[in-house]
Parts: sequence; C-alpha cells; structure tokens
Amino acid sequence: MSGTNSERELIAEGPAVILVEPQLGENIGMVARAMANFGLAELRLVKPRDGWPSEKARSAASKADHVIDGTKVFETLEEAIADLNFVYATTARERYGFKPVRSPVTAAETLRTKFKVGEKTGILFGRERWGLTNEEVALADEIVTFPVNPAFASLNIAQAVLLMSYEWMKSGMEDLTETVFLPIEQRPSTKEQVIGLFEHLEEALDARNYFHPPAKKPRMIDNLRAVISRRGFTEQEISVFRGVINSLDRFPRGWSKKDGPKPEKADLPKGASGEKTGNDADE
Amino acid sequence: MSGTNSERELIAEGPAVILVEPQLGENIGMVARAMANFGLAELRLVKPRDGWPSEKARSAASKADHVIDGTKVFETLEEAIADLNFVYATTARERYGFKPVRSPVTAAETLRTKFKVGEKTGILFGRERWGLTNEEVALADEIVTFPVNPAFASLNIAQAVLLMSYEWMKSGMEDLTETVFLPIEQRPSTKEQVIGLFEHLEEALDARNYFHPPAKKPRMIDNLRAVISRRGFTEQEISVFRGVINSLDRFPRGWSKKDGPKPEKADLPKGASGEKTGNDADE
Repeated sequence: MSGTNSERELIAEGPAVILVEPQLGENIGMVARAMANFGLAELRLVKPRDGWPSEKARSAASKADHVIDGTKVFETLEEAIADLNFVYATTARERYGFKPVRSPVTAAETLRTKFKVGEKTGILFGRERWGLTNEEVALADEIVTFPVNPAFASLNIAQAVLLMSYEWMKSGMEDLTETVFLPIEQRPSTKEQVIGLFEHLEEALDARNYFHPPAKKPRMIDNLRAVISRRGFTEQEISVFRGVINSLDRFPRGWSKKDGPKPEKADLPKGASGEKTGNDADE
Repeated sequence: MSGTNSERELIAEGPAVILVEPQLGENIGMVARAMANFGLAELRLVKPRDGWPSEKARSAASKADHVIDGTKVFETLEEAIADLNFVYATTARERYGFKPVRSPVTAAETLRTKFKVGEKTGILFGRERWGLTNEEVALADEIVTFPVNPAFASLNIAQAVLLMSYEWMKSGMEDLTETVFLPIEQRPSTKEQVIGLFEHLEEALDARNYFHPPAKKPRMIDNLRAVISRRGFTEQEISVFRGVINSLDRFPRGWSKKDGPKPEKADLPKGASGEKTGNDADE
C-alpha cells in the first residue's frame, strides 16, 4: 500500500497541523505521513521534546519529505497560531465550558468552507500522554472530538491526525462514493443478450436430456432463467459466461488445441465464442 | 488521548479484520488498537511471519487485550474467510477486473446493512510491503480503496484498518454531527436580555462621556449594538458579559474584597451581577 508518484498531482494545502510538545520523533514522522496521504502539508511544532530536525521523524514519515522539510518550530502555542484565523482543538476528554464541540465531519466541513474563502486555519493536537491543557484549548475557536468506543478511547496523535486529515480530504470530494480507480467499464446487457444466454444454455442442456421428465421442462426453464436473471449480468459477463458454456458443451475433458480442429464458429449459437472482451482471465 | 474505562459500554461487534501474512507484531498490535477504538473486536491472521501469540503485538495494542486474546490464526486465506458471507478486499492499486470498487463510506454502509440482517462479514488487508495478490482479491466480493493524495499514497496496514474501523463506527451513527460529549447546555438569549446588556453597557459608557459629541450618539449606539448583536450571545454569556461590565464600571484598579464593601446590588442595573451561572471561570 505504499508508493509515491511524482508524475501525479501532489496535493499540499489546507489547515496547519499544530503538535503541542510532541515527545517522540517517530510520532511526528507518522503525523507527517498521515498528513501527506490526505493532502495536508503544513506542520508546526510547539517545543518538541527531542528538538528539531529529527532523523527519527524523517524516517517514520516514509518519504513525506515535503512535510518534514516545511515543518516550523515555535516556542509557544500563541506564536504557533498567531497568523491563523480559525483554530480547532482536538480532545478526547470532556471539557466543561461554552466552546462548541464538533464531530470530525462537521469540523472538516467548517475548515473547508473557511479554506475556500481564504481563511488560514489550524488543528491543535496535544501531548502523547495527556493531550492539551485547558488553557491551550481556550486558545481555539472550537473543539473537535472523535466518535470512539466509550470503553476504549485510545487514539494516539498520529491516529488522530490521520482521521482529521482523512476527513479534510473527504470534505473536498463532490461525492463520497467516488473512488480513485474504477472497475473495467461494463455495459448493461440488453434483453436480447440475456435471452441469447438463456437459449444457449438451454440448448446445451436439452442436448443432454437435462429437462426430464418433459412435463417439468417449462417449470425447470422458469427456475433456471430466474437464477440467471437475478444475477444482473453485464454484456461482458454474458460473453464470459457463454464462453464457459461453449467450453463445457463442445469440448471433451482432456481436449487441447493440438488434439484437433476447434469446432467451426458456424456451428455455435450466436455470441457463444466468448472471445470478444479479452478480459476473461483478468480476475 | 488514552484511557480505558470498564464502567462504560465496550463495543465489540461488526466485521472481522483479516490480515494476510502480516510481518511485524507491532503492526498487528496497532491494528488491534485501531479496531478497539471503533468497536471492532474480531481479528484473524493468515500466516503471521513471526508467529502467534506475540508480546510485541500485545504491547502495541495499548490494552486492547480483548482483541489480542480473541485473535485467531489460519494457514490459508480460504480458511480464514470460510464462515463469512461477504468480504471486502482493501487495495491502493488499480486492479483490472469486473469487481466493484467502493469508497470507505460506501463499504462501511454495506457492511452495516449486512450486519443488521445477521450476515457475517470481513475486510482483508494485505502485507506491509505489497498488499494482496490478485488471487486473494479474487476471493473477495468487492474492493474498497481510500481517497488518498494521488502523488503520496502510503497508508500502512494499521492506518488502513483505522480508517475502515472509523467508517464502520460512523456507519452506525444516526447523525454524523453528533459528539460523545457536549458543551454546557446554553439557552438562547431573549431580546429582553440582549437589550438589558445594551442598556447596561451604554449607561456605564455614558457616565464616562463616551458618546461624544452628543450629535453622534445615536449612530455610535447603532454601531455598538450591531457589534454586540452579531455575536449571538447566549443567556449565560450575557450574564458573564454583564459581570465584566460591572467589574470595569464599579471597581477601581487594585480593588479587592478586603478593601471595602462591594457596591450594593440595588445600585446595579437588573442582571448585572454575573453571579448566576457559576461557570464564568471554567474556560
């Protein structure tokens, strides 16, 4: 699941991620990696315990060098957010106060809205062990918290950053059902193609006296057609399926091309060759 | 951001997570932690390189012991999914084939729908270095892929499991804007309360000849009221604000309780004490 590709668009925009007094370089690196995966690039550190730059961070960032190289270090949280217009504080603990509390989905939508009108935004993440102080939360505009298992709430900072980065990316998608790649485009089958499949299969079965006794044939055909219809085969899938019927119907076990001539296409029902798509074996 | 609480409901249900030939115990542990955060509990391993049980996994799971203790190990993927009805394969790489490709949101909704009618489901995650083989993907019903930065697609298995677990949790929420805790409940202010604030502030300012020259007073009041109205203060916030005005208006710098009697409440405009909520200092 890894790989960078310099020919593809590198997304690097959106809210700043601000880590308050992070301890381990590995965690800072995993944060950078999480951000890069979802198009965030601006990382700010307030008093990182082990200093900066950090080789451990760079290593854990898994080639998110553009994030690591651009990371800025500040002495205080006030300085780290000085140029921002709107800031979220992430917290897992209930905070008693008037500050609005948002879900990640709502927070990402708000950040996207502000981004679109040119506001500079940021998201605060607390220390590994105990998060943000009340005074730090008070510097934020709103709180964001994650919908975790009530009896097991144990997200580390890299996981929390990953989820917010992911929601940020999703907030920019027009359609949450879209995917970065698609299956082979397939055309819905027409009824003519479906009926062609019915008749091809039924002819091959009839030649073997499958429909027995004859009085039951109409009911057996009804049931068989129902099984096939329910599958909603596409045009290409019908082609695959007819190739399969053809193979079973026309060739004996153990047959190979060198054993003799393939039956003439003229002998086969229309559409039975299964050779049109060329995709049969890709799965 | 850490802490388990045995008095709260432990959610442990939903799709099985199946890791195919995972290498590092730490990654398996981080997967268990990710699952536990979002209520998943059933972890299956196909041929883990370093064997099972794994102390490194238990340590990295950060007390997700119920997941680690319940983990099952299988020799083949076919055995690992034998009892399941519906399986997703996660992949970052485009796979040429007919298999439907879904976003995490769509996949989680499908898994939730099947869960509600009693189907057993699972999600396959591949090896750290190179994911799933085509043959393994072919055993799944559908593919799920993440909306990552095109030029930086580098999710590790624990991150991928975290995102799917998170979407699973969200698919069970009635409202994606809900949060596990809420700010102090506040009542919207009435116009009487807002006008009380206006008049309190204007009286204190007028006593200092703030509205000068007198001809400009109506316009200055209009502007001041517009600034305050736009804030949409709640009833409790108005109480805080009137306490602030009262302090600035009635007490000299350097005043403390021992310096003398506090002005009688009877001297103050109605609602000016700011003592009603008791929440003023919580932020």
